[in-house]
Amino acid sequence: MLPSGSYSGLLTDLYELTMAAGYVQNRFRARATFELFVRALPRRRNYLVAAGLEQALDFLENVRFSKEDISYLRALPCFRQVHVDFFDYLSEFQFTGDVWALSEGTVFFPGEPLLRVTAPIADAQLVETSLLSILHFQTLIASKAARVTTAASGRPVVEFGSRRAHGVEAGVLAARAAFIGGCEGTSNTYAGRRFGIPVYGTQAHSWIMAHKDEADAFRDFLKVFPEQSTLLVDTYDVHAAIEKIIALGRKPSGVRLDSGDVLTDSLWVRQRLDHAGWNDVQIFASGDLDEDRIAALLQDGARIDAFGVGTALSTSADSPNVGMIYKLVEVDLGETVRSAAKFSQEKITYPGRKQVSRFTGEDGKFSSDVIGLDEESFEGGAPLLVPVMREGRRLEKVEKDPLVTMQRARDRYLADRARIPESILALRTAEFPFPVRYSTRLEALHDQVRQTVAGTARIG
Amino acid sequence: MLPSGSYSGLLTDLYELTMAAGYVQNRFRARATFELFVRALPRRRNYLVAAGLEQALDFLENVRFSKEDISYLRALPCFRQVHVDFFDYLSEFQFTGDVWALSEGTVFFPGEPLLRVTAPIADAQLVETSLLSILHFQTLIASKAARVTTAASGRPVVEFGSRRAHGVEAGVLAARAAFIGGCEGTSNTYAGRRFGIPVYGTQAHSWIMAHKDEADAFRDFLKVFPEQSTLLVDTYDVHAAIEKIIALGRKPSGVRLDSGDVLTDSLWVRQRLDHAGWNDVQIFASGDLDEDRIAALLQDGARIDAFGVGTALSTSADSPNVGMIYKLVEVDLGETVRSAAKFSQEKITYPGRKQVSRFTGEDGKFSSDVIGLDEESFEGGAPLLVPVMREGRRLEKVEKDPLVTMQRARDRYLADRARIPESILALRTAEFPFPVRYSTRLEALHDQVRQTVAGTARIG
Repeated sequence: MLPSGSYSGLLTDLYELTMAAGYVQNRFRARATFELFVRALPRRRNYLVAAGLEQALDFLENVRFSKEDISYLRALPCFRQVHVDFFDYLSEFQFTGDVWALSEGTVFFPGEPLLRVTAPIADAQLVETSLLSILHFQTLIASKAARVTTAASGRPVVEFGSRRAHGVEAGVLAARAAFIGGCEGTSNTYAGRRFGIPVYGTQAHSWIMAHKDEADAFRDFLKVFPEQSTLLVDTYDVHAAIEKIIALGRKPSGVRLDSGDVLTDSLWVRQRLDHAGWNDVQIFASGDLDEDRIAALLQDGARIDAFGVGTALSTSADSPNVGMIYKLVEVDLGETVRSAAKFSQEKITYPGRKQVSRFTGEDGKFSSDVIGLDEESFEGGAPLLVPVMREGRRLEKVEKDPLVTMQRARDRYLADRARIPESILALRTAEFPFPVRYSTRLEALHDQVRQTVAGTARIG
Repeated sequence: MLPSGSYSGLLTDLYELTMAAGYVQNRFRARATFELFVRALPRRRNYLVAAGLEQALDFLENVRFSKEDISYLRALPCFRQVHVDFFDYLSEFQFTGDVWALSEGTVFFPGEPLLRVTAPIADAQLVETSLLSILHFQTLIASKAARVTTAASGRPVVEFGSRRAHGVEAGVLAARAAFIGGCEGTSNTYAGRRFGIPVYGTQAHSWIMAHKDEADAFRDFLKVFPEQSTLLVDTYDVHAAIEKIIALGRKPSGVRLDSGDVLTDSLWVRQRLDHAGWNDVQIFASGDLDEDRIAALLQDGARIDAFGVGTALSTSADSPNVGMIYKLVEVDLGETVRSAAKFSQEKITYPGRKQVSRFTGEDGKFSSDVIGLDEESFEGGAPLLVPVMREGRRLEKVEKDPLVTMQRARDRYLADRARIPESILALRTAEFPFPVRYSTRLEALHDQVRQTVAGTARIG
């Protein structure tokens, strides 16, 4: 079900395998560098938050081709004439490349490599599809969570969206990514066990509906969970439900509003609870919330202490995908090293191995980024890409307590968030994007490659 | 990674577990019926296609709580005061309920149960989150694929979206669901092995870019795949690429256009290939396609033989979620059976166990559906829900050849599609939705439950 243990090498697009077969059979033995980055910001996003690196590295360490995988391929019509060398290559396949990456939780922008892979060209090609699908999804959700938690301005947000995430695995990984993007925890219990992140949840409408009487439903629940009960008060009538709870005389830890006019209800409920002397009973809101509704509720003075956000978060509903790609930027043939780029109409990519340098202004906020060549360094610019894997092995040990990794990523995001300029942090689309430029040397290399290609259809 | 073998019982929202603990500890031993359905059609959808039942049943058969799962729960603060009976219940947990469902590939509408679960109330509650996440995702993708394949009006569509699906598992299951929704196959190789569905793919831009010369890249690929090569012709210049291929004198099986002005390029390429006597070389189009672009291309006379559709399909980009829910509709307490419903403002649900009857008009097209009580039958109406599991065991054996199951579901969708009225099959939102009504008896039960609740806050 979930990313761990072994991954089948077949978790890839068929063309990665046909190309790998082409490289092996033609004895094309280059070492290639691919960079994974986002071409443009999706709708309503001013920045993105890197997430998913742990699972990406786990995939690279563990991807293998089983005998059954190879038999399946050999039986496909397109592989019938492929030489046995290729299947031997697959049976011995282990990823042995070097990887640089942005740490999880890092804020980044279009054009900036999230990951850079250098490996024998066939190997680097085979891992493309899964690397993209792992990093794309968690980055998408962490970036959405960043907006949602920013809108909640300090109030806790819990991720509630497993049921509408794109499958069981997506639910677990959405919980992980949402935590990196600033959420307090999740309703997904497996994610709690697996990643150590806090889990939340008490009762649904079905609990109330299963009981003949709403008051009985509340009482019976408090009996089992005397200290941690958030009672759901909107199944029939919010006012009546609150009166029943007060009449029971047992104070719950909170109440939850999941439908209706949450603003008005929250004001009434707060007043009624305070009047009963229950100032410390929290009001929790959920039900089709997203960053816009949360911002509007708080703007209008809603008395809500915490939010549960589901579908909008776990599917990144307003922008359910990002144009993330994995592009060849360098081919090292031993005697010559060629920089590779693509110039087909709207889909231009820059050649060469890159590093991103981030500059900070006098106000302590991020001021600009420069995407340069790997070997360049810029005074005052902090390099963002760090080495994470050498010859197929991770450079950092996996933490025994997974919460350490999670907390570190979340802290990194929160620290970065404090330094994002106001206009970029805002929910509305920024008039001027965050300033990111290519270095002079990178622009020069780009022009040079372009001229060669234009003249001779050759690269580098 | 993928749905098979065992599933952790923790793959659920925490509140399912707290409610289950409440039922066990309070000795609330009802048998409950829950129905899983869609409240309203998502944007730009006139109908939905049921998918994911195989994985849902696999989940129900295999979900278990391991010792580690239970230790994790016991250590959570909220469970500290819960009686050991509950943890014993979990350690012995196996799903023993009865399930009725729509067969995969069935076209359905809001309010119609896609699945109906009858089981001890705690059991039925625990499986909610995963059942929703499994059925929601595949139904979402099959329904999107239905639109895309309808737009292609008979031309093959291949699902290409693994890299932007919401994780590795989502990529595999999107491929499965897209096949049910009429796709010809997928680029996801694992889905090919796992479900027996056809796989497609040949080369990416990186293959071209890795070679010094585009002509060499084509030639070296044709050498390895002489019979099945779709060459990618848009890396630098489409016209030049086609001329190079013709000059090589080796006929590929197809060429692929992935960017730029696909309409104009397809017309030129077709003419040039025909002029070379290569009338049987297919033109394949891909690159940010969806149902609207496909319909527009064909409308404008593009000469495209097959389509590859990625992100838009694998994320159902224009409507990345559906309001699918799992609601309590009946509580059987032994001596009394109560029907349950919910009346909180905008979120009304109908009580009672339901069946859907579908009527066909004289033109052979579907004319209307009636949602009635399970025991009702309607002359001329075909019942859509069928029993699929009894006491936790599947009623039909899992097919040895998974393609049999897949083909059956796809054929069912294609047969249903032929009977969907024109206005509902159209890509644009239908002015009048497909006629679905509740039976008189169901409306009467609904009113009766409502009156009781309104008067006394009691149900049934």
